[in-house]
Amino acid sequence: MRRHNLSLVLRLLASQGPRSRASVAAVSGLTRATVSSLVADLIDRGLVKEGGTESDQRVGRPATMLELDGSQLVTLGMEIDVGFTAVLANDLAGNCVYRRRRQISGASLAFESLLPTLVKELRRAIETVQAGGRRVVGLTVAVPGIVDMEHGVVTRAPNLAWRMAPLGERLQAALGPQLPITIDNEANLGALAEYRIGPHAGTNHLVYLMAVNGVGAGIVIDGVVFRGASGAGGEVGHTTVQPKGLPCACGSVGCWETTVSMRALLFDAVPDLAAGILRDRRLSPEAKLAPVIARATANDPVALKGLRTFGRWLGIGLANIIDTFNPQVILLAGFIPWVAPWVMEEARKAWLANSLGESAELCKVEISTLGFSAAALGGAIHASERLFAFPTLVPIPSRPI
Amino acid sequence: MRRHNLSLVLRLLASQGPRSRASVAAVSGLTRATVSSLVADLIDRGLVKEGGTESDQRVGRPATMLELDGSQLVTLGMEIDVGFTAVLANDLAGNCVYRRRRQISGASLAFESLLPTLVKELRRAIETVQAGGRRVVGLTVAVPGIVDMEHGVVTRAPNLAWRMAPLGERLQAALGPQLPITIDNEANLGALAEYRIGPHAGTNHLVYLMAVNGVGAGIVIDGVVFRGASGAGGEVGHTTVQPKGLPCACGSVGCWETTVSMRALLFDAVPDLAAGILRDRRLSPEAKLAPVIARATANDPVALKGLRTFGRWLGIGLANIIDTFNPQVILLAGFIPWVAPWVMEEARKAWLANSLGESAELCKVEISTLGFSAAALGGAIHASERLFAFPTLVPIPSRPI
Repeated sequence: MRRHNLSLVLRLLASQGPRSRASVAAVSGLTRATVSSLVADLIDRGLVKEGGTESDQRVGRPATMLELDGSQLVTLGMEIDVGFTAVLANDLAGNCVYRRRRQISGASLAFESLLPTLVKELRRAIETVQAGGRRVVGLTVAVPGIVDMEHGVVTRAPNLAWRMAPLGERLQAALGPQLPITIDNEANLGALAEYRIGPHAGTNHLVYLMAVNGVGAGIVIDGVVFRGASGAGGEVGHTTVQPKGLPCACGSVGCWETTVSMRALLFDAVPDLAAGILRDRRLSPEAKLAPVIARATANDPVALKGLRTFGRWLGIGLANIIDTFNPQVILLAGFIPWVAPWVMEEARKAWLANSLGESAELCKVEISTLGFSAAALGGAIHASERLFAFPTLVPIPSRPI
Repeated sequence: MRRHNLSLVLRLLASQGPRSRASVAAVSGLTRATVSSLVADLIDRGLVKEGGTESDQRVGRPATMLELDGSQLVTLGMEIDVGFTAVLANDLAGNCVYRRRRQISGASLAFESLLPTLVKELRRAIETVQAGGRRVVGLTVAVPGIVDMEHGVVTRAPNLAWRMAPLGERLQAALGPQLPITIDNEANLGALAEYRIGPHAGTNHLVYLMAVNGVGAGIVIDGVVFRGASGAGGEVGHTTVQPKGLPCACGSVGCWETTVSMRALLFDAVPDLAAGILRDRRLSPEAKLAPVIARATANDPVALKGLRTFGRWLGIGLANIIDTFNPQVILLAGFIPWVAPWVMEEARKAWLANSLGESAELCKVEISTLGFSAAALGGAIHASERLFAFPTLVPIPSRPI
C-alpha cells in the first residue's frame, strides 16, 4: 500500500504540476500525515523537490510547493541486435543526455564472450552520465528474442543463437545490485517507444511490426505492452499461413516468417545474389538490401515481382494481425520502410481482401519513423516508467555524516 | 476520485471480510471522515450493511462492523444464440437464483421482430427475482458477433444475420433507464466465466475457444478480457491459414473457420448427409452432430478420417493461438467437447508441430466443462463486476417519506 501511495503522489505531481502537501492530500484523499511521510521519502530519493511558497487559500499562510525533480536522474536503454548495439540515456523529463551506436553484432560471439563488450559499453555510458553530475537509476535492455522478464533470462533468441542466456543476472553482477535492470524483447520496446513518443503516441491499441532477420511484433493493448504468460506473446512470425510452405528456423513449416523475412525477400527479388548475401554475416541490413533497391529502381522485372510477392505475404499476415488484435494502427519497422515504395500497394490489397472489413477500416498501417534504434529508446522509457510505478527502486543516496 | 474510493472500500470488504470504519480507513489510507461518507453511500445503495460490534483495540470502545451485503442484489446474464436463448440470475455472492433456457433461435426472426420475445424472457426473470424480495441491478447480454460495447450495438453477427443492431438501446427502452445493461460477445463472456469459476479460475492468460456455427475466441490477458480497439479482437476464426482454401462467410478465402466449422466437419465426416443437415435451420447442434458421432462410434472409415482432418486443422489454429497469445490454458467449447474423443490426438500432433516449443509446453489444452450456456453465466458475472467497479450504478432505492 505504501509503494502504491508513493507512486500515486509521484504521478499526481507529474501529471498535474507543482502543488502543496495539503493539495496533494485533498486530491488523493490521503491524510496529511501520510502525504508528509511519502513526500519526505520521495525527496530523499531525489524524485521530488521543494520549490517556492504559495499562499494556501484556506488558511492564509504560505505553503511550500512540491515538484517533480527528474533532471538529475537518468535511465538507460540498450539494444543488442544482429547488426549493431546501441546505448541511450534519457533524464526523467525525456531529454536525451547520451547516445552511442556501435557495430557490435550480438551474433558475432557466444553469449558469455560477448558480455564484457556489453558491460564496457554500459560502464562508459554510466560514467559519462555521472561526470555530468547525474545519477543512473535504471536500465532496460532490448534483445531480439523471447525473454523471461521475471528472471532476466533470454529464453530463446534464434538470430543471436542464444538460449537461456542469464543476461539480467550477468549485468547485475557487473554493474552492482543497486541498479534496477530489466530485459525485454526489442519489438515490445519499439512498441513502447511508439506508444510514448511516436507520431501515434497515446494510441491505446497499437502494433509495432519489425522485420529484420526474423519477424516480431510489439503489441500495445489498452495502453499496456502485451507479453503473454511467459513473454512469448505476439510471436506472429511463427503463425502458420501456409501449411505446405517452406521450413522455418523455428522447426515448423509454413510460418509467416518464411514469407516475409530478409531471406524470403532476397530469394524472390535477387535470386542470383541471395545465397551469397546471406552467407556474409558482417553485412548490415542496409547493405543486404542495396541490390534489391538498386534493381527495383532500375525496373528489373524479377526484383519488382519479388517485391510484389513479399508485399502480398506481408498483407496476408497484416490481415491476421488486424483480425486477431483489432489495432488502431500498425507501424512497419525494421527493413520494411526501405522497401515500402515497392511493396505497399500489393500489401494493402492483400490485407483488405483477407481481413474483416470493419477492423481493416479502423486500422491505419504506416511506416515507423523511429528508425533502427527505436528499441534502445523504448528501453530508456521503460526504465523510467518502472521508477514511477515503483519509486522505492531509486535508492536513497548515502550522505556525508 | 469518489467513485474510485467507493469501489476501493467495496473491494476491500469483499476481499478481506467484515471490519470497522476505522480499520477501513487505516488499511486504505483514506481519512475517517471520507470513509464514513463512502460507507453511508454504500449502505444507501444496499451494497454494504452494518453487522455486530467488536471492541476497537486501540481505544477500547466497541466499533460497528461493516460487511458486504450482496444477498438482496441480483445480476442477470442472457445468451442469444442460433439454437437457444438462456437467462440466468446470480446474487452478488454468486449463488444462482434463476435459470431458464428456451429453444428460441436468435436466427429465426429479423432483429426487430425477435426483440419482443427477448424482452418477455427478461421481464419474466426480473419479475421472478423481485417476487423473491430481491432487486435486479445489472444485465449483460451475450451475442455471437462483434459488439460495439460503448454503444451497445451488435456491429456484425453473421450467424444471426444481424448488422448494426442497437440491442442495448432497445433493451434499455423496454426495461427502463435505471438498469445498467451491457452487450458483449459470447466467447468473451464464456472466457470470463471460465476465468472466474471454471476449473482454471484465476489463470491470468486463458483462451476460451468456441466452435459452433463459426469459431470465436474469448481471450483473457493478464486477468482482463481482451476486446481490441472496436470489440473485434480475437477473431481468430478469420485469420488466413490457407491462402488458396475455401471461401468463408466473411467474404475472404482460406480462413481458419472454413476448416473447423460445423459445415467443414459435416462435409468431411458425413459427406452424403451434410447438405441436408445444413439446410434444416431448426436442428440443434446436438442433432447436427448425431450422425457424425453415430458413424464414428461404428468405426465408419470416412467419418473417422473426416474427424482426423478436423483435428489437424483444429491443431494448426491452436498453434497460431499459442504463438500469438502465449496462454497458460486453452479451453475448447461449443461442439468440440462432443467430438473430442476422435479429434484430440490429431489436434495435439498438429499444435505441437506448428507452435514454438516453449509456448506449447506451457499451455494446457482442455475441454471446457461449463456447457453450452457458459456465456449466460459469464453475463451475470460481468454485470456484478461492473457494479464493483462502479458502485454508483446501483441506484439508491426511493423510500417512503
